[in-house]
Amino acid sequence: MQKIKVGVIGATGSVGQRFVQLLADHPWFELSAIAASERSAGKPYREVCNWFLSAQMPEKAGEMIVQPITTDLDCRLVFSAIPGTIAKEHEENFARAGYGVLSNVSVHRYDEDMPLVTTEVNPEHLEILAHQRKSRGWSTGFIVTNSNCSAMPLTITLAPLHKAFGIKTVMAHTMQAISGAGYKGVSSAAILDNVIPFIRTEEEKMPKESRKMLGTYNNNRIVAAEFTMSAHCNRVATLDGHMETISVAFHDKPKNEEAILKLWREWNPLPQQLNLPSAPKPPIVVRMEPDRPQTRLDRDNGKGMAVTVGRLRPCEVLDYKYVLLSHNTIRGAAGASVLNAEYMLAQGML
Amino acid sequence: MQKIKVGVIGATGSVGQRFVQLLADHPWFELSAIAASERSAGKPYREVCNWFLSAQMPEKAGEMIVQPITTDLDCRLVFSAIPGTIAKEHEENFARAGYGVLSNVSVHRYDEDMPLVTTEVNPEHLEILAHQRKSRGWSTGFIVTNSNCSAMPLTITLAPLHKAFGIKTVMAHTMQAISGAGYKGVSSAAILDNVIPFIRTEEEKMPKESRKMLGTYNNNRIVAAEFTMSAHCNRVATLDGHMETISVAFHDKPKNEEAILKLWREWNPLPQQLNLPSAPKPPIVVRMEPDRPQTRLDRDNGKGMAVTVGRLRPCEVLDYKYVLLSHNTIRGAAGASVLNAEYMLAQGML
Amino acid sequence: MQKIKVGVIGATGSVGQRFVQLLADHPWFELSAIAASERSAGKPYREVCNWFLSAQMPEKAGEMIVQPITTDLDCRLVFSAIPGTIAKEHEENFARAGYGVLSNVSVHRYDEDMPLVTTEVNPEHLEILAHQRKSRGWSTGFIVTNSNCSAMPLTITLAPLHKAFGIKTVMAHTMQAISGAGYKGVSSAAILDNVIPFIRTEEEKMPKESRKMLGTYNNNRIVAAEFTMSAHCNRVATLDGHMETISVAFHDKPKNEEAILKLWREWNPLPQQLNLPSAPKPPIVVRMEPDRPQTRLDRDNGKGMAVTVGRLRPCEVLDYKYVLLSHNTIRGAAGASVLNAEYMLAQGML
Amino acid sequence: MQKIKVGVIGATGSVGQRFVQLLADHPWFELSAIAASERSAGKPYREVCNWFLSAQMPEKAGEMIVQPITTDLDCRLVFSAIPGTIAKEHEENFARAGYGVLSNVSVHRYDEDMPLVTTEVNPEHLEILAHQRKSRGWSTGFIVTNSNCSAMPLTITLAPLHKAFGIKTVMAHTMQAISGAGYKGVSSAAILDNVIPFIRTEEEKMPKESRKMLGTYNNNRIVAAEFTMSAHCNRVATLDGHMETISVAFHDKPKNEEAILKLWREWNPLPQQLNLPSAPKPPIVVRMEPDRPQTRLDRDNGKGMAVTVGRLRPCEVLDYKYVLLSHNTIRGAAGASVLNAEYMLAQGML
Repeated sequence: MQKIKVGVIGATGSVGQRFVQLLADHPWFELSAIAASERSAGKPYREVCNWFLSAQMPEKAGEMIVQPITTDLDCRLVFSAIPGTIAKEHEENFARAGYGVLSNVSVHRYDEDMPLVTTEVNPEHLEILAHQRKSRGWSTGFIVTNSNCSAMPLTITLAPLHKAFGIKTVMAHTMQAISGAGYKGVSSAAILDNVIPFIRTEEEKMPKESRKMLGTYNNNRIVAAEFTMSAHCNRVATLDGHMETISVAFHDKPKNEEAILKLWREWNPLPQQLNLPSAPKPPIVVRMEPDRPQTRLDRDNGKGMAVTVGRLRPCEVLDYKYVLLSHNTIRGAAGASVLNAEYMLAQGML
Repeated sequence: MQKIKVGVIGATGSVGQRFVQLLADHPWFELSAIAASERSAGKPYREVCNWFLSAQMPEKAGEMIVQPITTDLDCRLVFSAIPGTIAKEHEENFARAGYGVLSNVSVHRYDEDMPLVTTEVNPEHLEILAHQRKSRGWSTGFIVTNSNCSAMPLTITLAPLHKAFGIKTVMAHTMQAISGAGYKGVSSAAILDNVIPFIRTEEEKMPKESRKMLGTYNNNRIVAAEFTMSAHCNRVATLDGHMETISVAFHDKPKNEEAILKLWREWNPLPQQLNLPSAPKPPIVVRMEPDRPQTRLDRDNGKGMAVTVGRLRPCEVLDYKYVLLSHNTIRGAAGASVLNAEYMLAQGML
Repeated sequence: MQKIKVGVIGATGSVGQRFVQLLADHPWFELSAIAASERSAGKPYREVCNWFLSAQMPEKAGEMIVQPITTDLDCRLVFSAIPGTIAKEHEENFARAGYGVLSNVSVHRYDEDMPLVTTEVNPEHLEILAHQRKSRGWSTGFIVTNSNCSAMPLTITLAPLHKAFGIKTVMAHTMQAISGAGYKGVSSAAILDNVIPFIRTEEEKMPKESRKMLGTYNNNRIVAAEFTMSAHCNRVATLDGHMETISVAFHDKPKNEEAILKLWREWNPLPQQLNLPSAPKPPIVVRMEPDRPQTRLDRDNGKGMAVTVGRLRPCEVLDYKYVLLSHNTIRGAAGASVLNAEYMLAQGML
Repeated sequence: MQKIKVGVIGATGSVGQRFVQLLADHPWFELSAIAASERSAGKPYREVCNWFLSAQMPEKAGEMIVQPITTDLDCRLVFSAIPGTIAKEHEENFARAGYGVLSNVSVHRYDEDMPLVTTEVNPEHLEILAHQRKSRGWSTGFIVTNSNCSAMPLTITLAPLHKAFGIKTVMAHTMQAISGAGYKGVSSAAILDNVIPFIRTEEEKMPKESRKMLGTYNNNRIVAAEFTMSAHCNRVATLDGHMETISVAFHDKPKNEEAILKLWREWNPLPQQLNLPSAPKPPIVVRMEPDRPQTRLDRDNGKGMAVTVGRLRPCEVLDYKYVLLSHNTIRGAAGASVLNAEYMLAQGML
């Protein structure tokens, strides 16, 4: 099989580096373009990128010359991790020019014709792309978004339960890693020996995006799921990995914890059935120890693509409560985009 | 006024060090005895104590000879921070021998004749001491306990609201500092770059102790407040200061945030009215910035005795949600015991 | 005594915040002007400053309106913590306009007519100011600089030894706190679970500034001390406090450790003799425990103005080796400038 | 090839866990026995081991039943990571009983008949084993030790230089990770926001072991290399990876940095020539960026077995200075033992 050429725009930041890492040696995609701000353009990626991932920068990527973010990149798909302020224009330009855009940026997520997809959860929402192209006058191009890094793992753990029992109410409390704010996002003076109980717009995004992803697609429309949700979002001094403690109530309360555990353990959604290269098996790792998951010990499960859950127990206020953990820049960002692209390719949507 | 002689048992641990710090230069109490395990006894405190507080060890305390934990300590009050496994016997021995015991240990907290007191919240529960003495056959001795370090600041923020609106439901999520587990409690290998979503027995203690402290005393009985509560307790890599995100529902829902803020700001309970030396003024510090309180920036408010609250806003699931922060080994432990003792002295109960 | 009006330029950064903290309630100085970049000017300090010191922002300072950095500030002395790129012009403008400038910035430190002063070490270098004024055509204005935060505590520990034994060779290794790089200087993604063995220009500054401060003033000239020195400078994940391990050889090797300890303990330089408000007593704190000083436990000694030394022992390569620790933004920056100003005032130089 | 059965004694600690990780899926060795203290014996490894490595515990190892440390383990080689206090007796018992012992413990390192081997540096010292067996009356058993985790990477970087230029003087300054002290070794209360400039006996071990490893074997004797060395050892808040800043003087000073870099780059010692499974290629990774190596970014180079060097430059006091970094529980401990065993097997010494 001929590999499909892909590019990364916004390649020097926290999520951009993950894209480069995941795509540099991908079995289906060939990383053929790296683009970033004008300031970086024209120089080797190695020189302009403040690489901070523990794994070494891929050799080949390091030697690639960074290009400006223009629509003459030599690739078919564009993975986007550019700043929100410039994303709307750039991403639409690429789609208009015929590129497929897989975006981590929040700016388009809530558009009516925009799929917001976690591949395991709502791949059928991709069908709206025909409508998107038509309504926006795009020929082969498109934009597919993925959700923010705290909503995505929550939605993954809720998806099989929602189908079986119907989610009624969710209380979420997050303890999010600093890489979620980008490389320069959190000063060490701000977070060492500290917790910051506030992440701008995160508490609004989490319920909104979770409802859209758990919603239904029908006839060119995505109808968000209806459930009540409240989020408390916090920044803690971890490098990678968002921890969330969740309480949830159902329309049909499951008889016991085992009913939930069974669904999590046996869940086998499409990406896993299709053996997509980035699909973690299993998608949900269930730990039964009282003190798991833990951020540093479980964030790399499934090469950073699995969501790890634990501590399922009755909740005195809602029905059940549990803890989840996932890697915010792999599962919650770059890896999710890549998985979406793999799915589209496998399904003949590219 | 002649100072009252006091001793600290379990003086070398995390809470014990705070006791020594708070009592070494106290206006009403004279630190006249330091006791710890047999291993430490007979040596100067300086030599056996792995002091890790940022403020230097008080000179005088450093030179005091550590004594074994026996009931011939030269003091009238004993502040207890000994391990739970040996606390029951030792504390009762002291009370039987006529000492007043102010205890941080959980072992006696739930006894029917035992006051569990946060001075600002439920000082009237101390009246049960007459019953305690009678039922246990103690003459002048007594045991007064204070609550665990996550229940106490929560209860302080709930107390004025409970009186006005009636607490119906509480969801609490904590992000607790490592000093709460004692000096050796959390290995650095366990917590660096990590979150541990589990603290043994903490999720049981929080609701149980909050209900008891918000309960009513009547006729030799303490009747716990009745409200539903669920807690998620987590350990994070901060040195001192427990952060909690709280959602709460009331029997009479307050009209707006201002109704709550006003109660917090104007709350002036007995310790403050009595100008007790350790009573913070105000007891609740209200911050209006979107990103406060923060652990490192607010834990020392009121010399570590104030509880700082912020981010009060509507909760989509319960009525309102907010964030609180307090110093776990001062407000949440040693300082609380000292304040109880000050109150008892001021009220002629010693 | 009428307080002298002082201003802080560059007031929002890491060192600027320390200036505000130290000057807000100073017995001799009145903080009458706060200045920062155009972006901040016109707004209350509280709004534009990302305050991150553990002690709360002084109330009065929070309400002061930030001014642009122009030479019509209402004050007589200007404490400077502005970025190096703009410091040369601004500081000279102030001096030309008649202000006394006390600068933390490195740009002027190596000028021939510039005193680089650690008050305890080389206050006599201030005599060069007459020459400075004359050669630059300034009337009442002047610039006095203080050294970088790793050279200063080293020089303090060397000063009494240099006089007695003559410094011949120094090997210095530093482990420097993140606040030394300014509030935004070190991203948390860069330093969590990490050591960075490189601080730009630090290894050049340390020997150069140490030699100048230990040099002699004579006849309008400062002649640097002559000794060989090598520095390895590292950034570690501590908030405040630079730790340094030092090996040193002397022209006249002291007989034993006691000869050195005695000099450190008995050192009583001019600021201490004059009882200057910011002069720590003693200036050098000697700890004899095998594992002291420690960054978090000793940085606040002498209100952050003392240098703590420990572990003095023979060095197999040079003569002796030891460890030193000092607070980098108090002793090593803002506090040092303030002490210089206090000295000048006490000596009638203002 | 039939795999050789090996056991790990002291399997639950920091180094013991690394042994289990490295041996669970080794191409030449079969992990057939896990032994630990009486308290753990009889239970599955998963239950008694507080596993804290980021990679998950190997499935098979988790199910193995922990055995007491007795000489009836079903294996031929024993990898030892037991506490120093009991190591002498146990290790000698195993050797006497015919086992080959590869030890990380310091207790035997300085015995005259004991090889202290870093495989790349001094594999010829293993020839002393014939003498060891004879003098101790052991038949097939033996003890081979490897050095402490700060001496080993230093020696690796010095070895090719020593041969070419002759080491004359070394100044070493370390910034060591907490895993070097074992899982419970460093309390989080001791190290968060702190540097501890003291590691018991480390400053004595570093020179002593470096000299022995760089020494010569001749006629049943190991003669230590003669050079002057001084070490400053510090504990910092990193999980894994010891950073060292080194100054060195030579008998024949190399003309320039390039002469040193060339030796490091081209060094190809026996383990690499033999393609041993754990031999990193290259053994020394040279980085030319000004700010490398860094602890978190470079500790996993060569699967944790490579030593990364950088910042080579002239030293004002000695000849040259540089920075090195290596993984303390892989390269500096468990991995080094495994590599020694691989070498012995490949050379027919088992």
